[in-house]
Amino acid sequence: MGKEITKRETDYSQWYNDIILKAGLADYSAVRGCMVIKPYGFALWENMRDQLDKMFKETGHQNAYFPLFIPKSFLSKEAAHVEGFAKECAVVTHYRLMNDPDGGGIVVDPDAKLEEELIVRPTSETIIWNTYKTWIQSYRDLPILVNQWANVVRWEMRTRLFLRTTEFLWQEGHTAHATSQEAIDETKLILDVYATFAEEWMSLPVVKGVKSISERFAGAVDTYCIEALMQDGKALQSGTSHYLGQNFAKAFDVQFTDKENKLDYVWASSWGVSTRLIGALVMAHSDDDGLVLPPKIAPIQVVIVPIYKGDEQKKMIDEKVKMFMEDFKALGVKVKYDDNDNNRPGWKFAEYELKGVPVRIAIGARDIQNNVVEVARRDTKEKTSVSIDGLANTVAVLLNDIQQNIYTKAKNFRDEHIAKADTWDEFEKLLDSKGGFISAHWDGTAETEEKIKELTKATIRCIPLNNLQEEGKCILTGKPSKERVLFARAY
Amino acid sequence: MGKEITKRETDYSQWYNDIILKAGLADYSAVRGCMVIKPYGFALWENMRDQLDKMFKETGHQNAYFPLFIPKSFLSKEAAHVEGFAKECAVVTHYRLMNDPDGGGIVVDPDAKLEEELIVRPTSETIIWNTYKTWIQSYRDLPILVNQWANVVRWEMRTRLFLRTTEFLWQEGHTAHATSQEAIDETKLILDVYATFAEEWMSLPVVKGVKSISERFAGAVDTYCIEALMQDGKALQSGTSHYLGQNFAKAFDVQFTDKENKLDYVWASSWGVSTRLIGALVMAHSDDDGLVLPPKIAPIQVVIVPIYKGDEQKKMIDEKVKMFMEDFKALGVKVKYDDNDNNRPGWKFAEYELKGVPVRIAIGARDIQNNVVEVARRDTKEKTSVSIDGLANTVAVLLNDIQQNIYTKAKNFRDEHIAKADTWDEFEKLLDSKGGFISAHWDGTAETEEKIKELTKATIRCIPLNNLQEEGKCILTGKPSKERVLFARAY
Repeated sequence: MGKEITKRETDYSQWYNDIILKAGLADYSAVRGCMVIKPYGFALWENMRDQLDKMFKETGHQNAYFPLFIPKSFLSKEAAHVEGFAKECAVVTHYRLMNDPDGGGIVVDPDAKLEEELIVRPTSETIIWNTYKTWIQSYRDLPILVNQWANVVRWEMRTRLFLRTTEFLWQEGHTAHATSQEAIDETKLILDVYATFAEEWMSLPVVKGVKSISERFAGAVDTYCIEALMQDGKALQSGTSHYLGQNFAKAFDVQFTDKENKLDYVWASSWGVSTRLIGALVMAHSDDDGLVLPPKIAPIQVVIVPIYKGDEQKKMIDEKVKMFMEDFKALGVKVKYDDNDNNRPGWKFAEYELKGVPVRIAIGARDIQNNVVEVARRDTKEKTSVSIDGLANTVAVLLNDIQQNIYTKAKNFRDEHIAKADTWDEFEKLLDSKGGFISAHWDGTAETEEKIKELTKATIRCIPLNNLQEEGKCILTGKPSKERVLFARAY
Repeated sequence: MGKEITKRETDYSQWYNDIILKAGLADYSAVRGCMVIKPYGFALWENMRDQLDKMFKETGHQNAYFPLFIPKSFLSKEAAHVEGFAKECAVVTHYRLMNDPDGGGIVVDPDAKLEEELIVRPTSETIIWNTYKTWIQSYRDLPILVNQWANVVRWEMRTRLFLRTTEFLWQEGHTAHATSQEAIDETKLILDVYATFAEEWMSLPVVKGVKSISERFAGAVDTYCIEALMQDGKALQSGTSHYLGQNFAKAFDVQFTDKENKLDYVWASSWGVSTRLIGALVMAHSDDDGLVLPPKIAPIQVVIVPIYKGDEQKKMIDEKVKMFMEDFKALGVKVKYDDNDNNRPGWKFAEYELKGVPVRIAIGARDIQNNVVEVARRDTKEKTSVSIDGLANTVAVLLNDIQQNIYTKAKNFRDEHIAKADTWDEFEKLLDSKGGFISAHWDGTAETEEKIKELTKATIRCIPLNNLQEEGKCILTGKPSKERVLFARAY
């Protein structure tokens, strides 16, 4: 398989697929819309998952696990929820196969039909709130701060690797509280966790905001989100945190006795991020030569490539590398020494560039004489000659610098792609020239929002938190507006 | 809910359920045969999973993720495999629900029928080997050493918490090799990993062996297993590692070019352990007061309970505890200080006993004057007065001792419950008196094995590795036999 990647300029969408496939992050599968996450992609996901999991635990959450299947009737208990999910769910109707009596292989056994069909969870609010009913009697049982790491299935018509797949991996937090304020605080706390994770670990700047009514999660009172910007000027929703009010508690009759011995419905939040984040990571930072990974989540942070002729040189290099490998490991740097004899150095250079390894060290026999190595950073492609003395420390500092630089670059790009539009003309021109987030007044109606979407494919990504209040006129209808909202075309 | 647990003597099966439910490991769910793994149970699973994952990675394996769904036709490509799994699988036939035109809520949309039904994976050999076909061309692509942590579904008719549930969590390794010997070595390597994990982490002594033909995994050439013994004298299969030969490579046409440029089918292994291990853990070590957890996998290793009257005493204890909590954390001990004011010390003692916390420390005002605390170990119920000086170190040593003691106790029990039977009469008497493993001669036929099972419910658990070869006569038929095998009634 050729390693050549389509250029962003030529075909951004093909560039994205090329990187995913050729860097070995994922593969198409035999099942429509489902993908295989390959070892390199999964190692990346593990690093992201482990850090998020740590942050959830540090903020008092515990993991649990709820059933994959949801009885069909549960879905319809919350009116908005069923509207949102019934049209795209995988339905289990039978529990056995049999040999075809007509000799056509194996077929579904008609005698093994389920009394009630089961839905493969698209999200778990319903099965979880049905469970919480038995866990919650009094305020003493609250709060419940539970998360689960799981696979979910949504039967999407158009799928794309990582961004939108029929099955995907995610975490879903489901919390239960004694007061509305506590549930809102939780919703916002998690939004901050998501934003911190995106910015500090993924080097991905995000806008925190709240969704318009039309873009809310099906069953939520308010949906908060983080929105990131991709290199083609399109936005990507990267995480959502929902304040659910008492909607699910009412749907599943979950009441508790408060401190004054009064009965009330429980207040709730739910929140999730998914393997979609890997799509965001790829599209935000990578270039025409392949992935660019922030060091903090890179499966391999440093690769060392020996350059030698003959066994004697090889042996000398091996010995030197062995010495400083220990230093790297002592500092907790994830380092790989690739001395595989089957591939030439040039091939390896291209391969690790493609895989987005943040730092590459090349070491040859003459380098050892000079007590130096060549250090190349993936983000800027700069190469420098670095002393072998204190090499691990030098590289550790460099990794921090790369982490920061990738963030700054993405932040500058994002900041250059937030613009104000005060007229419809400006709005359309901005969208069609450089894209990005467009800050504009909107009359607050779902009709106008829908009309703008029809005309331009742009949607309201969010109403930023702590938004400036200012008088203005809706760009489409001219009706009065009290604040600007962020529009963008989005994934 | 009362915390009283049924005694083992009274009803072993009810005792088991009581512990699971009352210690907060798991809960029944609204979905037939599926359970909810509660936070305490999931924390236990996380500890087990993380250790196994570390051991897999140390032996060169990487994680990946394959689709939840398997096209129906894949299942039938391997003849034995479809026989084994078609009768108990959940089948997805539709991908959408709709409002019932007759007003009966939501129903399956008949227009959204899948062209080919999808099976919810009961195990992933078929989908994975279909993928490996595209990954493997040459010997250079081998070996593939991949594992996945996933949920699987088997539509079992009789289910029990952890031991046999419709959905369960597990890991499944799927490896591909250039030679038969390599695949066999891998199969045995993993069996050793499983045995080491069971014995050193779960304090669970196991017998390593190979299954008889009738007990083989559907599609395997050989199934290796670890078998543990429960307190009621029944065996529990705790992990299996399968040498698959070329069966799946042939079924999915996965060939490779070897070093001599000849084409051959790829050799394979697959192996798995599941949340069933938690059932084994509960049944092997627990007592009539609740769980007994080996320290190495306990979510809480040490709990500290303050005993005080009034705020002044409380404050004094808090200060002291704060000092030695740091020492515990520095040693990596998982410690919890339970100063919740809502529950009395006696209630807490019972609660942590139920939850199997290995060490309980009680500390009162007078203890502080005497510079001691009361240390109670869960396994033997011994209480001793221990100096506060060097407390964390003393307890760390004690935790090792508890880990070892739980293993020794289980090992002694197991060794007392392996007996030889040379006649049918002895065999039956042993089974009906103390149960356990019975080492007996068998004529090697599936008919005899089946007959013994019918007569006694005992099955061949395994033919132990490195089994002594000795002439003998089958206990049922009197036909000649060359070695003894291990029989037991089993879960």
